[in-house]
Amino acid sequence: MSRADRFLNACRRKPVDCTPVWMMRQAGRYLPEYREIRAKHTFLEMCKTPELAAEVTVQPVRRYEIDAAIIFADILLPLEPMGIGLEFAKGEGPVIHNPVRSMADVEKLKPIDAATQISYLMQAIKIVLKELNGKVPLIGFSGAPFTLASYIIEGGGSRNYEHAKAMMFAEPKTWHKFMEHLTGVIINYMNAQIDAGVQVVQLFDSWVGALGPQDYREFVLPHQKNVIAGIKKTVPLIHFAHGATHLLEMVSEAGGDVIGLDWRCNLDEAWKRVGEDKAVQGNIDPISLFGSKEFIRKRTKDILDRAGNRNGHIMNLGHGILQQTPLENAAEFINATHELSKR
Amino acid sequence: MSRADRFLNACRRKPVDCTPVWMMRQAGRYLPEYREIRAKHTFLEMCKTPELAAEVTVQPVRRYEIDAAIIFADILLPLEPMGIGLEFAKGEGPVIHNPVRSMADVEKLKPIDAATQISYLMQAIKIVLKELNGKVPLIGFSGAPFTLASYIIEGGGSRNYEHAKAMMFAEPKTWHKFMEHLTGVIINYMNAQIDAGVQVVQLFDSWVGALGPQDYREFVLPHQKNVIAGIKKTVPLIHFAHGATHLLEMVSEAGGDVIGLDWRCNLDEAWKRVGEDKAVQGNIDPISLFGSKEFIRKRTKDILDRAGNRNGHIMNLGHGILQQTPLENAAEFINATHELSKR
Repeated sequence: MSRADRFLNACRRKPVDCTPVWMMRQAGRYLPEYREIRAKHTFLEMCKTPELAAEVTVQPVRRYEIDAAIIFADILLPLEPMGIGLEFAKGEGPVIHNPVRSMADVEKLKPIDAATQISYLMQAIKIVLKELNGKVPLIGFSGAPFTLASYIIEGGGSRNYEHAKAMMFAEPKTWHKFMEHLTGVIINYMNAQIDAGVQVVQLFDSWVGALGPQDYREFVLPHQKNVIAGIKKTVPLIHFAHGATHLLEMVSEAGGDVIGLDWRCNLDEAWKRVGEDKAVQGNIDPISLFGSKEFIRKRTKDILDRAGNRNGHIMNLGHGILQQTPLENAAEFINATHELSKR
Repeated sequence: MSRADRFLNACRRKPVDCTPVWMMRQAGRYLPEYREIRAKHTFLEMCKTPELAAEVTVQPVRRYEIDAAIIFADILLPLEPMGIGLEFAKGEGPVIHNPVRSMADVEKLKPIDAATQISYLMQAIKIVLKELNGKVPLIGFSGAPFTLASYIIEGGGSRNYEHAKAMMFAEPKTWHKFMEHLTGVIINYMNAQIDAGVQVVQLFDSWVGALGPQDYREFVLPHQKNVIAGIKKTVPLIHFAHGATHLLEMVSEAGGDVIGLDWRCNLDEAWKRVGEDKAVQGNIDPISLFGSKEFIRKRTKDILDRAGNRNGHIMNLGHGILQQTPLENAAEFINATHELSKR
């Protein structure tokens, strides 16, 4: 079985020869070949230069026996075409110069045409597809509405999301209008990537775990459903909400062929809550890769045992791989997944 | 019924006239009378000057109809007597100059005698008790082992807790030895506060939500049980783990008369998971207090409805009150709790 079939079959809950595996943020700083390029270019330069983005996308596929590539990009790329000033300040992460805080701010936002306005990404996708030549599938991705909204309202990363939640609680009309705008943006952005040729898409809801269950239901779920309904059904969709074990049933209700799990749950129990009619992805703690090889193998085996060789499990970390991860430990995780899950 | 009886009865799951309420971090920056004192003193000066610590402890009791006071202190106060250099850098939070990273570091740590080495806190407790004169009970508190360990290992706040988890995963003997040391420190610190006269204690496990269920069971639960077993049973103990909805059954198993809930759960469902033989505390999102008065009242009522006037509910925020909270909105929350829960 080809690695591409292995991955796509798992997304569709069909039989596989062994469990497919990839790592969130696998095109990243833990790789010396990535750091070499990053030393010469800013993060945004790398995103906006198709050859560079394509190169770092393919790097982990060259080094490891992983079963998918994920296009190198940032969830905040659609901000500029919307009319929002974005900068990646040194050591600070993203900084947004004109955060959205009012109905007037929301009304100024523009719809986007990702195929032309983010054409650099579509070009990168095409270069990668040519280089991969069907060996492994390519994943495209986008941030989910809450995660994008909270970045844009807060003006960057946040600890408490107080401006975002204050808008929800005190100005619900503004909130919903903003989420509706983002819904259109995300659908356009994802579909442009699908048109460019990605074979899988992942929706990242990185910060939605900050919400209680009622808030997710009222302020997020309807928009999340609309986003997922609007994305073309020609490729499988992975829906990953980080820190959201307490919201798992609703995340699954929002949609997706595969539900991503972080490490804050036992995979077997979480899969029951997701519903066994969906595939799941995850869920080793990325920091497990700082342990010994024996420890990594033990934790990998535990997850595989909980999946029990059922159709529809993609192995992954529960969040992005960390910069200090030893290279050989990432290899151990990938190889152990394949070896211990042979059907 | 006195406010003191109302609060202590709720801790013991006995009848009350209405639901008692307090707010985590209620002695804090949202109060102008607090900021006035803070403008003239560093945070550590305030902790270490009994008259100042006592004054800010009593401030919210003067302003609001709250049913308990909590002593003004910091969970990191026991670090200095352990031999760890602690500083509160401007705008950065706590900075620890000699983080613990190895067995040799752990072996250098000293046990503490809080009654003499943190006598300033015990003096503050005595001043507060005199001023409160039994009107409302005084809560003492400590950080839980994981939360203290992660601060000390990381050297301050952290996003991923990678050094702490790396110690767990790669050097479990060092981890357990460190947790055993902290267990002794916390028991001594809590019991000194009880001897000084606090009528309730709360154990804060602020960061333990970063762990998956297996890690909590293996690396935290045994120590947490030992801490709780070692604290004098003469006063009720509130056990609060933030961001830990996914660990609720184990948090309850670790012990405590009252289990604190953050806002990431519905109180009725969470209470079932905790076990109805325990009291619960919580759980409005602190940022709800940025909404309108109607919104605050609606959310307060929802929680009271889920508690259903059962014995053993203490109303609280799901985390500390935020600095920008409007004063009158905190009042609305407190008064709504009392009005809507009259028996």
